[in-house]
Amino acid sequence: MSKLRLSITMSLDGYVAGPDQSEENPLGTGGMQLHEWFFPLKAFREMHGEDGGEVNASSGVVEERRENIGATIMGRNMFGPVRGPWPDESWRGWWGDDPPYHHPVFVLTHHARDPLEMTGGTTFHFVTDGIESALSQAKDAAQERDIWLAGGASVVNQYLAARLVDEIDISIAPVILGSGARLFAGLQRDTLKLRQIRAVDAPGVTHIKFQVG
Amino acid sequence: MSKLRLSITMSLDGYVAGPDQSEENPLGTGGMQLHEWFFPLKAFREMHGEDGGEVNASSGVVEERRENIGATIMGRNMFGPVRGPWPDESWRGWWGDDPPYHHPVFVLTHHARDPLEMTGGTTFHFVTDGIESALSQAKDAAQERDIWLAGGASVVNQYLAARLVDEIDISIAPVILGSGARLFAGLQRDTLKLRQIRAVDAPGVTHIKFQVG
Repeated sequence: MSKLRLSITMSLDGYVAGPDQSEENPLGTGGMQLHEWFFPLKAFREMHGEDGGEVNASSGVVEERRENIGATIMGRNMFGPVRGPWPDESWRGWWGDDPPYHHPVFVLTHHARDPLEMTGGTTFHFVTDGIESALSQAKDAAQERDIWLAGGASVVNQYLAARLVDEIDISIAPVILGSGARLFAGLQRDTLKLRQIRAVDAPGVTHIKFQVG
Repeated sequence: MSKLRLSITMSLDGYVAGPDQSEENPLGTGGMQLHEWFFPLKAFREMHGEDGGEVNASSGVVEERRENIGATIMGRNMFGPVRGPWPDESWRGWWGDDPPYHHPVFVLTHHARDPLEMTGGTTFHFVTDGIESALSQAKDAAQERDIWLAGGASVVNQYLAARLVDEIDISIAPVILGSGARLFAGLQRDTLKLRQIRAVDAPGVTHIKFQVG
């Protein structure tokens, strides 16, 4: 059975992006600090076609998160800064011609758009009929493999509230953002029964994985 | 130099107590779940004069948190359920005649009250002139030892906002509370520069320690 696996980085005070997200500042004010543990890694540099980089306790976690993933689901703000109807087809994601997904990516939006085929195996599909439809399409695309729930907070919180997430792997960054997009906002008590599977103490970050029961 | 050390348990969504705290339910609705990692421990049973209990990866953390502590600071709601002026002297804390502190405890309140000497070395001092005064009195009492900042969220958030905390050790429980007393609420971005010191993967909890710089 294909699982829906959330992996995301959160500040110690619960935010996955800072306020005032924009094209210049996709993660909002201060949001880049969340990912400082990731940038020095060999795994990150490889994604950008660069040599070198560190291998540390985070490397195994990054690898584990990618294993057996056949499709990705994300919110529209994670795909790009365009709001409202698409003015044209010119926005093609933050990631250049060869995005680091290499599989179908389902982008939740209120505004229809034709699928966008990139090089390297990534195709962006724009889903306008809700989170359950996106999950069902992602499952078909992933075949027996799992689906990565990538962000942002709004889409993730909707999937959590609907109890559709099977696994949560949170990277907690040593950062206080104070405002922005808050993960787990709006959930009712005990919506999720969590069982801690493991925690990894890595340079500048802690990765905690939960099974959702 | 005496340090102010926060150690506290937080839900994955950032709460240190549930809603509707009362005498019957001191940690609010669902709040007891936060501490389920602690109750089975030998260290917890010993505090209550009981034999047995587990020794696991949390045991060393509990011990470390108690080491070199000479005084404690807490908010009034952590001391008891009484709100407004003290009707009489009958409320003597949640912990019986011999509270598990064994040193001076400074309780922040708006309502004056005489010091309350318990058995076993604990004396509760009621401080009405603010967080800096409580800290200065606690430092005098602790002499060269450190001060434990114990909770609740309101008092802790005030100390954090005033940049008076030297060390933060957070136990993250695999629980979603959805509402209640939220740690780190109301802080501005980058109020605190945090450096992760260590994370401990323990049964049903992760303990992450930060130096505040």
